[in-house]
Amino acid sequence: MLEKVLYPTDFSDASKKALDYIKQLKQAGIKEVVVLHVIDEREIDAIFQHSAVRFEDIVRSIRAEAKKEMGAVERELGKNGFTVKVRIERGIPFQIILAVEEEEDVSAIVIGSHGKTNIKEMLLGSVSEKVIRKSKKPVLVVKR
Amino acid sequence: MLEKVLYPTDFSDASKKALDYIKQLKQAGIKEVVVLHVIDEREIDAIFQHSAVRFEDIVRSIRAEAKKEMGAVERELGKNGFTVKVRIERGIPFQIILAVEEEEDVSAIVIGSHGKTNIKEMLLGSVSEKVIRKSKKPVLVVKR
Repeated sequence: MLEKVLYPTDFSDASKKALDYIKQLKQAGIKEVVVLHVIDEREIDAIFQHSAVRFEDIVRSIRAEAKKEMGAVERELGKNGFTVKVRIERGIPFQIILAVEEEEDVSAIVIGSHGKTNIKEMLLGSVSEKVIRKSKKPVLVVKR
Repeated sequence: MLEKVLYPTDFSDASKKALDYIKQLKQAGIKEVVVLHVIDEREIDAIFQHSAVRFEDIVRSIRAEAKKEMGAVERELGKNGFTVKVRIERGIPFQIILAVEEEEDVSAIVIGSHGKTNIKEMLLGSVSEKVIRKSKKPVLVVKR
């Protein structure tokens, strides 16, 4: 029922708190965790438009940063006895999360209630709200 | 972390599915379940305005029906080894759910994604969406 979960993270405080719940849910049967980080392509575009840096260099630097953060998450989950799969993707976060949910055929999603981009979320609705609305599987929303 | 959970139910399919997850989460540490049913006072008003039945009689009949359904939930949870507390309240569902969350000092909420009133929810947003937005605790949203 909860064997394989998807854990989308943007490394925000709420995302980190969600990780604590995954660890506790091991007793409820979670064996495998798909850790997903989506590089928001709208943010790459915004940086590109306001800087002299080349597009590929922006992507490379954001990806390197994400890889480092993901490594820490992977080690923490591995240490706790989970099978871990790490994915770094590029796109619109909620769309990619829903696509990966299907692709990986997870049994549930564990997600932080709010990401790093608070002001934008207050206007546009949070990533987690969109995921909850469209997800076919149960979603555990962890607050900050 | 998940010792005492609040389980709001309107006896819909999604609510019933949420109950299955509570049972599975016993292994993750859930000991006590507060089962809450809110009699929507807007519905009582609507029935009252379109029928010749006395207000108290409408409330009494809705409450009797709810009591029967709640009895079944209580027995099922009890059978599975949970401490169960049953509450039937009257008001606006999402407001009462949030008030009871505070009052009972639960560690999480487990709720169905959609209640019985689908069309109204499509226009106004579901009870679960409002609960997720305002809740201070993690919310597990179970889809139909």
